[in-house]
Amino acid sequence: MKIVLIGSTGTIGKALADALSVNHDIVKVGNRSGDFQVDISSIESIKKLYDSVGKFDALVSAAGQAKFGALAELTDEDYSLGLNNKLRGQINLVRLGLEYINDNGSFTLTSGLLAREPMPGSAAISPVNAGLNGFTRAAALEMPRGIRINVVSPIWVKETMEKLGMDTAGGMSAEDTARAYVESVESSRNGEVLDVRDFA
Amino acid sequence: MKIVLIGSTGTIGKALADALSVNHDIVKVGNRSGDFQVDISSIESIKKLYDSVGKFDALVSAAGQAKFGALAELTDEDYSLGLNNKLRGQINLVRLGLEYINDNGSFTLTSGLLAREPMPGSAAISPVNAGLNGFTRAAALEMPRGIRINVVSPIWVKETMEKLGMDTAGGMSAEDTARAYVESVESSRNGEVLDVRDFA
Repeated sequence: MKIVLIGSTGTIGKALADALSVNHDIVKVGNRSGDFQVDISSIESIKKLYDSVGKFDALVSAAGQAKFGALAELTDEDYSLGLNNKLRGQINLVRLGLEYINDNGSFTLTSGLLAREPMPGSAAISPVNAGLNGFTRAAALEMPRGIRINVVSPIWVKETMEKLGMDTAGGMSAEDTARAYVESVESSRNGEVLDVRDFA
Repeated sequence: MKIVLIGSTGTIGKALADALSVNHDIVKVGNRSGDFQVDISSIESIKKLYDSVGKFDALVSAAGQAKFGALAELTDEDYSLGLNNKLRGQINLVRLGLEYINDNGSFTLTSGLLAREPMPGSAAISPVNAGLNGFTRAAALEMPRGIRINVVSPIWVKETMEKLGMDTAGGMSAEDTARAYVESVESSRNGEVLDVRDFA
């Protein structure tokens, strides 16, 4: 399969590139590096990417920014970042990608644990992740030509926790996190929120 | 209690005004009518509303627009409507309302069934409703001064179904729908998604 991997230079993205390239051809897309670049908050940038990449069999997105911060300090711009980048950006990858994806292809997006298991500081992230789960379940009902869509919900990634100086207990390695994405791409699942803990 | 009711002229809003006014003083806020007007997609409009209304004990929002439409036909503008109006609009009612709400007050927002039970046509609504559930669960963890927040998830309202020429079987009257909102305001619940079917 030809798989377009958005966010290929991130912590999860690098592990995805390794895991998916075992059986597939990967088009690596990053913010600033990779085979191609995209700013998912920009429709023009997404259109340009698809024009360059052409037809594909699967899109995997491990991209998207959202703001972690105290409820009392989050600004409208902080909420906008997540809503326009991680949420609407990934929705637009699907919406515009439908023109380019082959029959029986698949979309795999990324949400996160905070959708259903919030923590102090996640008021601008939880709606984004929950929104991605909601979009995926709804969009799956109307996918044409045998196309599937799922969303992977990662927990904290150990490598990220290390960078932030956090205790990595309770986290999951990027390599283990990647398994749920591979499952989404290679199985017949559709409209599912894949909790990475079920696949590690 | 002094309760600010946003969306007081809508189908659910009118029933809420009736139900809440039994025990409380209601400030009715509509798009174009009511005691005050607000456009919840505008921060300036929300600020102006709160400046006019002053301190209050509870805010109940039954307001918010989102677009129903086929996945293949939904545009970026259609997604933006829901994300900026119903989702971010209600988030901003809370964010900006925190300056005005009294100790031990409560916020009650409105999401909807399509968050978790999507249907064809709900790809731009499901993420909005799911996002509101996610925001509420997260924000509840950081509410100051004993303030609570819940979100009510209505099913189809019979009166709306009638207007749209739909069979009303499976719907719920606006009066019955209002019970979950009263529960949110008058109970000690916090961080909950109140399914109207549990309170009718």
